[in-house]
Amino acid sequence: MTDPVLDHGVVPPVLTPLTPERELDVTSLERLVGFLLDAGVHGLFVTGSSGEAAYLPDDVRYRVLEVTAGVAAGQVPVLAGIIDTSTPRVIQHAYAAKAHGAQALVATAPFYAPTAPPEFPGHFRAIRAAVDLPLIAYDIPVSVHAKLSPDLIAELAADGTLDGLKDSSGDLDALRAVLETAPGFRVFTGSETMADVALFLGAQGLVPGLGNVDPHGYVRLYEAARRGDWVAAGEEQRRLRRLFTLITVGGSRMGRYSSAIGAFKEALVARGILAHGTTSVPMIPLDGTERAAVRARLAEAGLG
Amino acid sequence: MTDPVLDHGVVPPVLTPLTPERELDVTSLERLVGFLLDAGVHGLFVTGSSGEAAYLPDDVRYRVLEVTAGVAAGQVPVLAGIIDTSTPRVIQHAYAAKAHGAQALVATAPFYAPTAPPEFPGHFRAIRAAVDLPLIAYDIPVSVHAKLSPDLIAELAADGTLDGLKDSSGDLDALRAVLETAPGFRVFTGSETMADVALFLGAQGLVPGLGNVDPHGYVRLYEAARRGDWVAAGEEQRRLRRLFTLITVGGSRMGRYSSAIGAFKEALVARGILAHGTTSVPMIPLDGTERAAVRARLAEAGLG
Amino acid sequence: MTDPVLDHGVVPPVLTPLTPERELDVTSLERLVGFLLDAGVHGLFVTGSSGEAAYLPDDVRYRVLEVTAGVAAGQVPVLAGIIDTSTPRVIQHAYAAKAHGAQALVATAPFYAPTAPPEFPGHFRAIRAAVDLPLIAYDIPVSVHAKLSPDLIAELAADGTLDGLKDSSGDLDALRAVLETAPGFRVFTGSETMADVALFLGAQGLVPGLGNVDPHGYVRLYEAARRGDWVAAGEEQRRLRRLFTLITVGGSRMGRYSSAIGAFKEALVARGILAHGTTSVPMIPLDGTERAAVRARLAEAGLG
Amino acid sequence: MTDPVLDHGVVPPVLTPLTPERELDVTSLERLVGFLLDAGVHGLFVTGSSGEAAYLPDDVRYRVLEVTAGVAAGQVPVLAGIIDTSTPRVIQHAYAAKAHGAQALVATAPFYAPTAPPEFPGHFRAIRAAVDLPLIAYDIPVSVHAKLSPDLIAELAADGTLDGLKDSSGDLDALRAVLETAPGFRVFTGSETMADVALFLGAQGLVPGLGNVDPHGYVRLYEAARRGDWVAAGEEQRRLRRLFTLITVGGSRMGRYSSAIGAFKEALVARGILAHGTTSVPMIPLDGTERAAVRARLAEAGLG
Repeated sequence: MTDPVLDHGVVPPVLTPLTPERELDVTSLERLVGFLLDAGVHGLFVTGSSGEAAYLPDDVRYRVLEVTAGVAAGQVPVLAGIIDTSTPRVIQHAYAAKAHGAQALVATAPFYAPTAPPEFPGHFRAIRAAVDLPLIAYDIPVSVHAKLSPDLIAELAADGTLDGLKDSSGDLDALRAVLETAPGFRVFTGSETMADVALFLGAQGLVPGLGNVDPHGYVRLYEAARRGDWVAAGEEQRRLRRLFTLITVGGSRMGRYSSAIGAFKEALVARGILAHGTTSVPMIPLDGTERAAVRARLAEAGLG
Repeated sequence: MTDPVLDHGVVPPVLTPLTPERELDVTSLERLVGFLLDAGVHGLFVTGSSGEAAYLPDDVRYRVLEVTAGVAAGQVPVLAGIIDTSTPRVIQHAYAAKAHGAQALVATAPFYAPTAPPEFPGHFRAIRAAVDLPLIAYDIPVSVHAKLSPDLIAELAADGTLDGLKDSSGDLDALRAVLETAPGFRVFTGSETMADVALFLGAQGLVPGLGNVDPHGYVRLYEAARRGDWVAAGEEQRRLRRLFTLITVGGSRMGRYSSAIGAFKEALVARGILAHGTTSVPMIPLDGTERAAVRARLAEAGLG
Repeated sequence: MTDPVLDHGVVPPVLTPLTPERELDVTSLERLVGFLLDAGVHGLFVTGSSGEAAYLPDDVRYRVLEVTAGVAAGQVPVLAGIIDTSTPRVIQHAYAAKAHGAQALVATAPFYAPTAPPEFPGHFRAIRAAVDLPLIAYDIPVSVHAKLSPDLIAELAADGTLDGLKDSSGDLDALRAVLETAPGFRVFTGSETMADVALFLGAQGLVPGLGNVDPHGYVRLYEAARRGDWVAAGEEQRRLRRLFTLITVGGSRMGRYSSAIGAFKEALVARGILAHGTTSVPMIPLDGTERAAVRARLAEAGLG
Repeated sequence: MTDPVLDHGVVPPVLTPLTPERELDVTSLERLVGFLLDAGVHGLFVTGSSGEAAYLPDDVRYRVLEVTAGVAAGQVPVLAGIIDTSTPRVIQHAYAAKAHGAQALVATAPFYAPTAPPEFPGHFRAIRAAVDLPLIAYDIPVSVHAKLSPDLIAELAADGTLDGLKDSSGDLDALRAVLETAPGFRVFTGSETMADVALFLGAQGLVPGLGNVDPHGYVRLYEAARRGDWVAAGEEQRRLRRLFTLITVGGSRMGRYSSAIGAFKEALVARGILAHGTTSVPMIPLDGTERAAVRARLAEAGLG
């Protein structure tokens, strides 16, 4: 591992606040980052899936990174998602992310262009060779439609290509296999709902989208796990699992992602952090009933 | 339909020649476009899947478009793929593509970010509203992991959002449903191997990747179909089906896409059109045995 | 090929009429078989997917076969589906089907137990070796969750294991590959909606579920195709495609199969062939509105 | 819940020993059941997926059940898989299983015939109504190609249809949701490799195929978990995870199931429990190298 920039902890995938005109709401972003830092998070991950990176033009992505790095001011590391379809395009984001203040990079396998596992090692090695920053593999089959196998991760951990894994696959068996094959390798789970189990299995950290809404909860969960108090960690996890059901408020009239990101943003409006709940085109916005449902769930979770 | 820029015919998805250093090989691209025009193709589609668009940085994409539009010089329309993860990013490509000479735009549904069918109409409408060029929907489930339903296409055809459909889904039943629901709507098939059937069902045109290698064959097939000579069309199709097996030369040691694009490029090297068979990172290059197999298949098809 | 028992033609997958108590309605079955024979069908396929074979206890399956063979009385061949999870169980059905009058057997690849393509040849060879009747492979990925590759079919055609293929995969490209690799091999399509295209590509016959409802239409389509009149075949196909939309009357409150089988049976009640529209447990029955919708579609198709 | 027949513990899915002629090897089965009982298992599950139920004719299935119930002689409950394509066929197995000594029944959702979630409740309710034995839902998406949702399970637990769930889905998040929605409901995990985690989350028992080979290991794991010693449970699990890799000895020349069942049987031959490693047609048998690899893994796990 090239750089112990990020060892462990809660690293929320920071949402990207938008104005009603769908421009970056810098003031809200600064407030959100401050809110997360005050809650004691250990790092910040920008321009990931929860940050609507797939919707943001390049200049907005880099501005998000700059603003976040500016507020973080070195207190915690800032990781940048460099999400694009294949290696040459991803490397361009890597350069830009380094220039705009990223301290580590988070890259998926190629997507859209049909690729295959034999081509994955060359992808990650080329990115790592191009830009001298710690590189974290982002395993997110729901978006990439391929799974990074534990053997691939172990191979790229062993030769120093990867500094870590952000596992959003939901496959805890494979997460465990990575930890067994590459002991000490940094694994962060993207799961909101099985965070305690991932830590129990040896994961070092959490990257929960819901951590934008309730960072204190995830910090408590993480601290309980660190001291081996699995009962307390489980208790906190159960509360967060109930809160997490707010992602379904949009029902079947929209995609689940629209519903989830809309609900997270609405919750942060309710908590006074964001000025607007606006999401990117073509996501369908929550209506009044759905927004009220979000607030009801917040209240049930003691955050009302 | 806003503009009869492209009515029918053979519209190859133009390959992107690269130098051994993986820079755009402009001379080879010019030669390739000239080769296709001489063969009598009716349009040119750049920066699509066969054009390695998912691998090309923005500046390379736009340079490919400029070079192609320059050689075409208005003889045939030039369509540009505007491939990106979601609406705001796609719209940026749409502006750029218009500025660099595109006469029509080809856009997929959103990918990577989990989206859902209720969000697809807003996506295509926002693109069409942003840039005044004919818009063709690109249905390619192997890359996007969603299918554009005939009902969606019919709705967007009826309200003028779409000027056409490039169907790379392989679902001929759905293609037929589109043609029944929206009579006269322009449908182009991306299939190399069922082109005659698609024309039999009423499709207006062909966008075959193999059309880079053997444009004369697809023009003959198309002309036979236009005059209703299905026996001759089927005969030509059978020859092209045999030739198309060259895409498997790479076997299981690489992804099928690496094998296919590598084989197409090698065939064009053999035919004296491209200077190099280089493909993008992280595609695995063909080895000597595989390149020889490509040449053998060319010879069998009478192109050696 | 061991026996030219079934050369070509329209071979409806016969529905299984049930009484309101969900016992076999023998009288209705006899009437249905007579209706099909009067319409000029060339064969009868019992205990297939449309025959609710997956729901029928063994004794009911064999009784259906007996009744059908009795009515057919040698006028046309009777094929029997021998649908079960793997080889030893399928072979037991093969013995029983032969004993109850089947003249050919139709078997899928194994399902439920995870199997893999290397195991498929042994499966079909063991069935063929056990019972001396022509064997037809049944390719139905929607149920089996595996596709029989053209190479597998060609191998089993070449060594005499298979006498034919019933292709319910919807993959016309693969159907064409089978016909190219094994010229003269009997291929029957299970498609209701692309029957004309399958015949155009060289398929010898049709096994359309909708052929229970409108056997005359499929016989006309087939005869038009035999005399090379693709315009007339296409015209008939278009009418049948519109009629086929009756399978969606159940909407989303039930599975599509419940809706389709329920609609076929209701249509045959309306036409005076079946006494009841009852379907097997746990299929959800059509309600009054849905039954009326079936009758409306029949009327639109000129069968009211 | 109708009957506390099975409260908790290790319930191996008993393998079905076959002679070289592929008949039931009763002596080996008796020895295997005795071996499991001696190891302290808490129940026995016959004619499940590991028992090759999908391959066994009905009479063999029922003989397996009889033999097992005879050896168990009431010391532990015997559960019977009633695996078939849909409700009426499953109910026939339910009657037979009760007659042959089953104390609880284990049924999947319908498969092969396309069914849909709205039809699942009727399926399980009809089975439960037909035969008065505790009913356990078997969630095995790899075979059934559908997942039983936590909401469905909770609904059928609440109304007394289900007495338990055998979860072979690998989805620990959903398993947790079931336990949260239906507190106290019996959930058994089918996972060999995440058994400790399932118990940590509140599952009451284990149904591990590998438990045929090393029942003592799973009993130790279970007992450690019962006394809350997660470190010891995890240690045992790690050893069993390494042993479990024996399922891949067949590599890619056969399906994974052939490899796994073949390896389990070979391991039991090596341990002196089974007389033969024979598997059902059309599974591909292990060769000498592969059998030696099984023995090497056994030795590494301290079972050589």
